[in-house]
Amino acid sequence: MNKEMNAEIISVGSELLLGQIADTNAQWISQQLAHLGINVYFHHTVGDNYSRLKDVMKLANNRSNLVFVTGGLGPTEDDLTREAGADVLNQQLETNQQVLAKIQTFFELRDIPMTENNQKQALVLKEGEVFPNNEGMAPGMFVEFNQTGWIFLPGVPREMKSIFLESIVPFMREYYPVNEQIVSRVLKFIGIGESILEDRIFDLMEAQTNPTIAPLAGEGEVTLRLTAKAKTNEEALTAISSLQEQLMMRIGDYYYGKDDESLQQKILEILKENSYTLASAESLTGGRFIDQFISVPGASAVIAGSVVSYQTQAKENVLHIPKSLIEEKGTVSEQCAREMAEQVQKQMQSVISISFTGNAGPNASEGKPVGSVYIGLKIGNQDTVVKAFQFSGSRENIRNRTVKKGMELLFNTLKDVLQK
Amino acid sequence: MNKEMNAEIISVGSELLLGQIADTNAQWISQQLAHLGINVYFHHTVGDNYSRLKDVMKLANNRSNLVFVTGGLGPTEDDLTREAGADVLNQQLETNQQVLAKIQTFFELRDIPMTENNQKQALVLKEGEVFPNNEGMAPGMFVEFNQTGWIFLPGVPREMKSIFLESIVPFMREYYPVNEQIVSRVLKFIGIGESILEDRIFDLMEAQTNPTIAPLAGEGEVTLRLTAKAKTNEEALTAISSLQEQLMMRIGDYYYGKDDESLQQKILEILKENSYTLASAESLTGGRFIDQFISVPGASAVIAGSVVSYQTQAKENVLHIPKSLIEEKGTVSEQCAREMAEQVQKQMQSVISISFTGNAGPNASEGKPVGSVYIGLKIGNQDTVVKAFQFSGSRENIRNRTVKKGMELLFNTLKDVLQK
Repeated sequence: MNKEMNAEIISVGSELLLGQIADTNAQWISQQLAHLGINVYFHHTVGDNYSRLKDVMKLANNRSNLVFVTGGLGPTEDDLTREAGADVLNQQLETNQQVLAKIQTFFELRDIPMTENNQKQALVLKEGEVFPNNEGMAPGMFVEFNQTGWIFLPGVPREMKSIFLESIVPFMREYYPVNEQIVSRVLKFIGIGESILEDRIFDLMEAQTNPTIAPLAGEGEVTLRLTAKAKTNEEALTAISSLQEQLMMRIGDYYYGKDDESLQQKILEILKENSYTLASAESLTGGRFIDQFISVPGASAVIAGSVVSYQTQAKENVLHIPKSLIEEKGTVSEQCAREMAEQVQKQMQSVISISFTGNAGPNASEGKPVGSVYIGLKIGNQDTVVKAFQFSGSRENIRNRTVKKGMELLFNTLKDVLQK
Repeated sequence: MNKEMNAEIISVGSELLLGQIADTNAQWISQQLAHLGINVYFHHTVGDNYSRLKDVMKLANNRSNLVFVTGGLGPTEDDLTREAGADVLNQQLETNQQVLAKIQTFFELRDIPMTENNQKQALVLKEGEVFPNNEGMAPGMFVEFNQTGWIFLPGVPREMKSIFLESIVPFMREYYPVNEQIVSRVLKFIGIGESILEDRIFDLMEAQTNPTIAPLAGEGEVTLRLTAKAKTNEEALTAISSLQEQLMMRIGDYYYGKDDESLQQKILEILKENSYTLASAESLTGGRFIDQFISVPGASAVIAGSVVSYQTQAKENVLHIPKSLIEEKGTVSEQCAREMAEQVQKQMQSVISISFTGNAGPNASEGKPVGSVYIGLKIGNQDTVVKAFQFSGSRENIRNRTVKKGMELLFNTLKDVLQK
């Protein structure tokens, strides 16, 4: 089928209309469809109400030629999608024996009696395709009616994504192949403000129609999405790489990674390549800095660990920061940051150490305003370098900005050190 | 106006349909409307396309008597909401002098020339009300057409929320007063599985029509939302409290807090009441456990800190775990968990200490499968209690379940200790 696909996504569930949860399914499916080169023209959310659900489906049938429906496939009385779908699309429902057997097994294994409610999850549209759900009970379904394709998926995000990636994507590539490939690449930058970065590449952003350059908002970093359309994947990638080269000539100094690469992954790569172990001494960041790295598999090759010396006592007891220093300069000070970095490097015997001390709020302390932060960085035998910052926002904002800034300093310092 | 309000929310913006951002505006407005006692029946998202935007607005005019529109009020060519609104609602647009002056001032202050584009943000629906935007340029608007009320708001969340809270809520209370108040309370439980909990209160859930009891999915915990409708706030709260009493009689043992109260907040309260300081020794959790507590303002009263001894060396160097123990039993062991808890208690001189060691994956290690976890808990002079767990899922899942389980053990142990 080669005609222009215009898709819409229907999200079923009263909890969405009560604002109890966000509609992440519609967003995620939209991203997937963008990658598959399919236009999405509408999102429509409706509650667990049979009459309104049917109206929404009828409208979709009239205006779209591909419709995704998530939600309403559960076992409760409020789950009406199957019935409404059968009604609007003039289909019969029948029990799928494979699905029924799977549901029965699930309950047997847990020695729980299966209720009649659960049996309805084995009902499928008779003339449709059934896609197995390996994360839950209700299967996905596809049916075509009056030249509109309908895909039904569970509302539970984990289940929906699983069926989508395992079955829907291959199905779409075969049933709805597209004439052109849409390829995106996200480029990530740190250490430069959004306005200044956009200033440097403004003419490229204005001129580019294919690929396009779209800035995406980030916290303490800047991201650009390059999107190219071409007949083949290779042509699209070539166009993107070519544009990336132009961008790198202007802002390459601030580049750290692309797509799903995280700054912590890039830093870990550099640390591993050079066998540099890392330890942190954290106060206001409370372990969040080292957690970023430990979240990455394989971190144990280079991440020694951290001393989270939150209370003043802990700074004295564990890091042996002299009481006199704390009395004289306070914990929110350049001297304390320096001492913390040096002590943790000794104790953890790491090549590199970084320290964080400051006031995340909500109250000022030691005469220092909320948001005062000192970050210390010690590389090997070199003198500890301490930098001072003033961040604003909530406690969460300040802690997160501090973690981000620590990663930025570490990344830039490593690049400098290795270029010498 | 006292008739039954049925509202819908239209979100305008192609970036929403590309999945580039999530529709947080519709969720947030829905929550606000739930508090105001107004039913939301649909969310509808449409792109920056004049024809489709008009169709979506016409549909809303026919089926809803209160419509919120967010987005499309910016200065670019893609911002079409004003024009489409004027078209569909048979209104004229006129320049609002106050808004224009504000926009001009903004540019003058920054010494930037104001473009013609920006002038269109001063256009408003002639017969409507205008609500000032104190966070940006485009004002909010209200107009009534064919018995349907229309409220237009900017798409930028910060601006939308600001106008909503400052102007829309008071406006709604006056223009659309509701006969009944809707009040919700969320009750939180830990240490009991969802199915078993629902089993214990099944009859109450079935019987209750006002208040209603709705279970909400949680990770490692169970949450119930009680929702009551009554003529006054007080009556609704009384009904909720009464139902809560009934629930507590059956599942009160597992209750830890309500609404926005977090488990870490409750634990901190208990620690503070008893002057119990807390320290953690963390391996696989990587600082994430102590971070939960440090995220809460005022934590420094009782949170000493943590030793994140990630590498084996760090366990030896900083926590002084004997090399022989590690060689014999490994780091993923009951003995190592015990030693970590005892050592960190000594070093941090905390009343309570908790330790986490295990294998978060993705590979098995020391002959222990992925998900093997040991949590040690030491209260004062009492013997350290170590518990073993087997978690499944991704690295992230396992680490999060471990943190959650640690909080559950700590909470339950504190309750037991304090009841003696």
